[in-house]
Formats: sequence, structure tokens, C-alpha cells
Amino acid sequence: MSQQKLFNVAVVGATGAVGEQIIGLLEKRDFPIAELKLLSSARSAGTKLMFKGKEYTVEEATPESFKGVEIALFSAGGDVSKALAPHAVEHGAVCIDNTNAYRMDPDTPLVVPEVNIDKVNEHKGIIANPNCSTIQLVAALKPLQERYGIARIIVSTYQAVSGAGSRAIDELLRQTREVLDGNEVDPDILPVGSLPVKHQIAFNAIPQIDKFQENGYTLEEMKMVRETKKILDDESIDVTATCVRIPVVYGHSESVYVEFKNDYELEDVKNLLADAPGVVLVDDPAGQRYPLATEAAGKPEVFVGRLRRDLGHARGLNLWIVSDNLLKGAAWNAVQIAEYIAIEKP
Amino acid sequence: MSQQKLFNVAVVGATGAVGEQIIGLLEKRDFPIAELKLLSSARSAGTKLMFKGKEYTVEEATPESFKGVEIALFSAGGDVSKALAPHAVEHGAVCIDNTNAYRMDPDTPLVVPEVNIDKVNEHKGIIANPNCSTIQLVAALKPLQERYGIARIIVSTYQAVSGAGSRAIDELLRQTREVLDGNEVDPDILPVGSLPVKHQIAFNAIPQIDKFQENGYTLEEMKMVRETKKILDDESIDVTATCVRIPVVYGHSESVYVEFKNDYELEDVKNLLADAPGVVLVDDPAGQRYPLATEAAGKPEVFVGRLRRDLGHARGLNLWIVSDNLLKGAAWNAVQIAEYIAIEKP
Repeated sequence: MSQQKLFNVAVVGATGAVGEQIIGLLEKRDFPIAELKLLSSARSAGTKLMFKGKEYTVEEATPESFKGVEIALFSAGGDVSKALAPHAVEHGAVCIDNTNAYRMDPDTPLVVPEVNIDKVNEHKGIIANPNCSTIQLVAALKPLQERYGIARIIVSTYQAVSGAGSRAIDELLRQTREVLDGNEVDPDILPVGSLPVKHQIAFNAIPQIDKFQENGYTLEEMKMVRETKKILDDESIDVTATCVRIPVVYGHSESVYVEFKNDYELEDVKNLLADAPGVVLVDDPAGQRYPLATEAAGKPEVFVGRLRRDLGHARGLNLWIVSDNLLKGAAWNAVQIAEYIAIEKP
Repeated sequence: MSQQKLFNVAVVGATGAVGEQIIGLLEKRDFPIAELKLLSSARSAGTKLMFKGKEYTVEEATPESFKGVEIALFSAGGDVSKALAPHAVEHGAVCIDNTNAYRMDPDTPLVVPEVNIDKVNEHKGIIANPNCSTIQLVAALKPLQERYGIARIIVSTYQAVSGAGSRAIDELLRQTREVLDGNEVDPDILPVGSLPVKHQIAFNAIPQIDKFQENGYTLEEMKMVRETKKILDDESIDVTATCVRIPVVYGHSESVYVEFKNDYELEDVKNLLADAPGVVLVDDPAGQRYPLATEAAGKPEVFVGRLRRDLGHARGLNLWIVSDNLLKGAAWNAVQIAEYIAIEKP
């Protein structure tokens, strides 16, 4: 057995909610690292972070930061990826980008390892990590698509605030305490930090994630529509999404209606999901067991349950899909791709 | 103008979450009351409640409680309605029942005043108030059904804990504080008080409201399916529901996909909803305005927004419907029916 090659790895956005999870996973998975660079905006540079018992100082990410870097994991927002990923590629790094910057670029593979890991081999320097709400959807639906074909998907999401970053988590907890104490709530971040109107998230449901597009859908909804088609590699699938933020810290839930191209048996579906990689079937109505955000939090899998036939359409199926949006929905999916590149790639 | 006749009114379940709202509305609306009887279980009997500045002592509801009662509003659970409503009818009362006991009874009208108030005239002593999640759905869809016809409805709900009663509200608030304080959570009520398994509702989304049926759907989901067809008076409509409890105190939200029988114009839909009785259109993506549970709480209307064409199906429309589940979803709908009987009925 040959010795494992070690890689120079950079984490861009190291102080963010996803960056923190990536660093934790690199440590936990004992990723083959030669040198680790933790990068951030100028604002967060200087932060001290621990990795395998050693203290690292976070540095400001600049084009020159990527000299010698072989694998760069980006999760510092689309603008940062757009500005810096090309420099990282120039320096010879493979970039795994967790933002929306390159996902729909035809030259960039959009990868969920359980679905289309082979696409990694087509990369031209950048591999895109899909949106959190898309990853758990396609991970659960892929085995069903292979068996029955998918005609349409209608999904309504119940998304955790951690998807909007650390400051949104702080905001939910702060607002919640204010409401419990009978104090005034002064929303500051959600639904979209860069937009003028803010809404209370504590004890509320906000049907806006990211900015509105001209067609009346939000960007988050359109991400789900476009990315699902790209990853499932079938532009003919009709996808409709309604994306909603709810007062949950970790774990996105999704109510999904899927219509297959062919007839199906419910028992078959259960067997397929029970055997699917990265998927855990939790489907026991009699025992009141179904996926829950609180139980998915901190776990890498995608949890699926509430499987039931549509009452009107013979090829329709309803299901409930839950996963930790920071893990499978972001950091873990990215680290899975990095592991493939570093360890498994043919 | 003739003098308004006054009625002997009984409120059964007077100490519950809905009963409290009914009493508040009877006062606020200056309902033509001769004598008011506040009734409850033996456990809550003796409670003192105020009505128009006068103190009332809640009495235990028995078959004899309804002597002389002309209008009885029931919201003390299905078993109480089943046991006592027939006695109330025998004593000559018209019962407006807010439970599931008689809703699907072919002899009982199931009424949402904005949709089918004329059905009240067919009653044989009992008029059923629909399930909260159904009421707001059909109130918003009725004007669209009239214009275009409805082929199918796929709805995912985001339901407030107050729908499960006062103790569920207490549970959410108590659990939330426990989580914020870093203490252990010990679920006691939700998802279903009478079932053995309990789940944390604080910072979670529970895809179970009421008991599971043999077909894998919950009773709440089947209520939405059956009641929607009955109220919209069209058994051919395909209805699919996924009902989810979220950490909200007041106000149910619904993500709704509807497919019309005929082509439609989005502007037309907006105009129809803007003019619909009891409906408020809140649909301004540019201004980040859409219905929110926090803004619907305490208001009698049904709020509708996020209107957008389905991207794949020309006759498909997505919308977001929010209403206060204790008001339009329960107490206000019941008092509207009572007002029709007492004041408007031809």
C-alpha cells in the first residue's frame, strides 16, 4: 500500500457557520493535510482557531493566499468566491465552492457525492457544492429517479436559521428571549441581511429566503429548481419550490410531493431508501417515528419518512426529508468531495 | 326597524383556548345575548370569567345545561360534542360545533361563511365549523374555484401550537426557555396528548398533527382532504396535505399549490383575491411584503400572498395563506355562523 499523499488545504470563510463545520470535519475525518490555511475577510482576520490541538491564526484571504494550496474549500459568500476562486485555480488549487457563484456554470460540476460523484472528474478547477435545501432533496430522490423516473417535484421547505449564518442564529436566540420576556423585538438580519425590510423570525414563519426574482420566486426557490434539474441531469423534470424560514437552529425539513414517470410500489420505495447511500429511512407511523430537525442536527445523513401514496395520483408520493443544513447541506458534502479528490479519485 | 331578538347562548369549553376567543368575540361584536351560560368539564367548573364587566362562574356541562339554550357553541373536544350536542338539539338549541365530531356527517352542514353560508339553512340542529387549516384554505381558494375550477390542491402546513390548546402553548414557551437556558427538555403534550410518544416542539418541526390513519396520513391531513372537498362541494378535486407543527404560538401558514381546470391570468387572480370577502391580499415581493403569522395573529381575516405561476404547469399557481387559527380558524368562523343565525338569516 502506497503512502497517502498529504495536501495543502485552504478554508475560505473559516470563521463562518459553515467554515467552522468544515474545519471540525477535516479534523474528525483525519483529512490528509500537509499545511492548513484558515482564511477570512479582513474583518475576521486575526481570529484564533484550534485544529488538532494546534492554534491557527485566521488570515485575510487575498489572491496570493492560494500559493501552494492544492484544495481550497470556499464558504465566504458568492462575491468572495467570484473574486478569489479563479486565483486559487491559477495557483493550481482545486476549489470546492459552497456558494451560488459557479453552480449553474456549464463548465462547473455540481456535485452531491451519493448522486453524481463521477462529475468531479470533469472539473476545470472548480467544483460547486449545491444549495443546502437541494442536496438533501436530490440525495433522497436519486434512487427513486433511477428506478421510476421523475416527472415533477413540488417541495415546501422548513429551513433553519443557521442557513443564513452565525448572525442569524444569534438573532433567533436573542429575539426568542425578547418575546418570552415580553420585550420589543427589533429584527436586524432576517430574512435577507442586505435588504431593507426585516421580519421577526422568533415564533414566526417567513416565506422569503434570499432575494425575489422577476418571476416572483425567491433566489433560494430558483436555486432548488435549477440545481435539482442539473444534479438529477434531467431538464424535463418540473420542479416547484416554496422556501420558508422557521424558528429552528439546525436542520432543514422538506415536505415533498414527487410524481414518477412510472408506476411504483410503496414497499419498493421504502426498500430503495433503506438501502440508499447516505440516507436513513425513519418511517414508523405506529411508533410516531419520522425525521425531526432536532434529531438530524449534528448527523451527516439525510433522513426520510412520512412516505405515503398520493390519494389522487397513482404515481404521486409524499415524503418528509430532513438533514443538518450545515453538514450534509454544506460542510459534509464539501468534505466528501474533497475526500474523493484526495483519497478515492481513480 | 324591529327590535333585535336576544338569544340564550351557551359556550361549551369556555375555559379552553378557543372558548376564550369565542367569549371575547361575543363581547366585542355585541352579540344579542339574553342569557349567557359558560360550560366546561367538571375539572374546570368553578372558574370565574368576565363578560361585559360581569363575573360568570363556569358550570359543568351536562345534558340538562342546555334547557332554554337557543345557540350553543361547542369547542371542548369531539367526545363532548358527541355526548352533549344531541341533548342541546333536543332542548331546541342550534349547535355550532367546532370539533371533528359531525363535520363529515352528511346531514350536518360544514360552513365557512365566505364560502357556503347558505348551507346553514339546511341544518338539523348542528352546524359544523371546519378544521382551522381547512377554513383558511377554502376561504382563499373559493373565489378562484368559482372563476377557473380547481383540479387539484397540494398543501403543506406550518401550524401554530395553539391549535393543540392552551397546554400546548405553555409547553412551547416552557421548552423554549429550557433550550435557551441549556436545560434538558421533557416533552409532555405534543404532538398528540393522548399518544405515548412525545417530541420537542421548541426549535423543531413535527410532521404529525393528530393520530395516524391506516393510509399513512394523519387525521389532520385527512380532515383537510375531506373537508375541503365537502366545503368546495366538489368530490373530484384531488387534495393532498402534509400537516406540520412548528414553534409558532398563533397563526397557521400554508404553502399551497393549486391547479385550475382552466387557464388563468395572474393579474386576474390578484384582483379576485383583493376583492374576496374576508381575504386580505398581501403580495408585494419588491417591498418584501407577504403574509406572516406574527402579523395575522389577532386579526379575523385570511391573508394571501406569494402568488406566482407554476414554472412547469400553465394552470398551476403557488400561494401562501396565513390566518389566526383561533380566530378565523375557529372562534371567529363560529361566531360568524352564530351571527348569521341570530341576525342575518332570511
